[in-house]
Amino acid sequence: MKAQEYPAAVLEMIAALKRMPGIGSRGAERLALWFLQQGRNEARTLAGALTRAADNVGRCPECGFFADNGCLCTACGDPARDAQLLCVVEQPTDVLPIERCGTYRGLYHCLGGKISPLDGIMPEDLALDKLTERVKAHPGCEVILAVGSDVEGEATALYLAEQLASFDCRCTRLAQGMPAGAGLGHADAVTLMRALDGRRML
Amino acid sequence: MKAQEYPAAVLEMIAALKRMPGIGSRGAERLALWFLQQGRNEARTLAGALTRAADNVGRCPECGFFADNGCLCTACGDPARDAQLLCVVEQPTDVLPIERCGTYRGLYHCLGGKISPLDGIMPEDLALDKLTERVKAHPGCEVILAVGSDVEGEATALYLAEQLASFDCRCTRLAQGMPAGAGLGHADAVTLMRALDGRRML
Repeated sequence: MKAQEYPAAVLEMIAALKRMPGIGSRGAERLALWFLQQGRNEARTLAGALTRAADNVGRCPECGFFADNGCLCTACGDPARDAQLLCVVEQPTDVLPIERCGTYRGLYHCLGGKISPLDGIMPEDLALDKLTERVKAHPGCEVILAVGSDVEGEATALYLAEQLASFDCRCTRLAQGMPAGAGLGHADAVTLMRALDGRRML
Repeated sequence: MKAQEYPAAVLEMIAALKRMPGIGSRGAERLALWFLQQGRNEARTLAGALTRAADNVGRCPECGFFADNGCLCTACGDPARDAQLLCVVEQPTDVLPIERCGTYRGLYHCLGGKISPLDGIMPEDLALDKLTERVKAHPGCEVILAVGSDVEGEATALYLAEQLASFDCRCTRLAQGMPAGAGLGHADAVTLMRALDGRRML
């Protein structure tokens, strides 16, 4: 006797859904059954959206953020932005959190990672040539090093500051200290130390 | 100044991912960014799997389980199965849990729901004609009413037993009682009552 099983196309769909992060075997099966019970259009809608994203979405040739293939991203294509202000982030996914805080009016630069010899990521793997080219094109600009505050991020920020020292630009780093709304009891020692170091006059 | 935003194709992908059950705005954005960072093939793999499932997967014309378009499902196409044993379930998704317990060797019948006047589901919305046709084709068969044990399930089971009373078949119902591995402290009153009612000699 053969065990009752899903058709091959259903098993293939379950396997593909399971590849997504945070979706396990059970979750993938539940999603696949949901698609089957919704009728064909639901699966076709997602398939179409995925295909159009794969076909049309590339990287902005200036800053490396997501953009339609061969086009500038919204920020780089906007003449109202302050081109003398360049915020350097690790990944394109770091851009929208900064954008959503609502006060930044400059441009971005996505490195594509941070220097991390243990993971095999060396300076030549990052978008540094494009960064120096952009800094050269805007003498007197400010480069905000908004890479993470972990060990690799700090190393990357120091390396970038060194590389950019010979150009006409100022390098700054995001302030480090207490996160908004957090009590002292929840802060770790390094955060508290940096918050003390960076204390300001009221 | 325009706010930095994802390209339209990315927003479309986020919206399509968000339609899946259990995936919220944040989760959909995280999945979309994951697809963008994996490169084009990951999105195309899932899109292909979804499209093939939408194109190729239909229902078994005998029992209503998932099957390749126009084909019998694995169970209905297997001559080694006991055709005198028919397990009636609400949804195709109820079949594999029974199959996985490993002892059932008969066929299945998916009703497509349970009688629930409040939700507008009446007997004529269920696959009853096909059920009586199958029962007629196998005189002396056993029909296991494996619909849920909630109010609508019980009503559906009683209705089916009545409808099948004039045919040459036996209707049975899944046993009700304590779930395996559960202590008495976790059982609700109705479950305990049914477990007492159905107690067996050791």
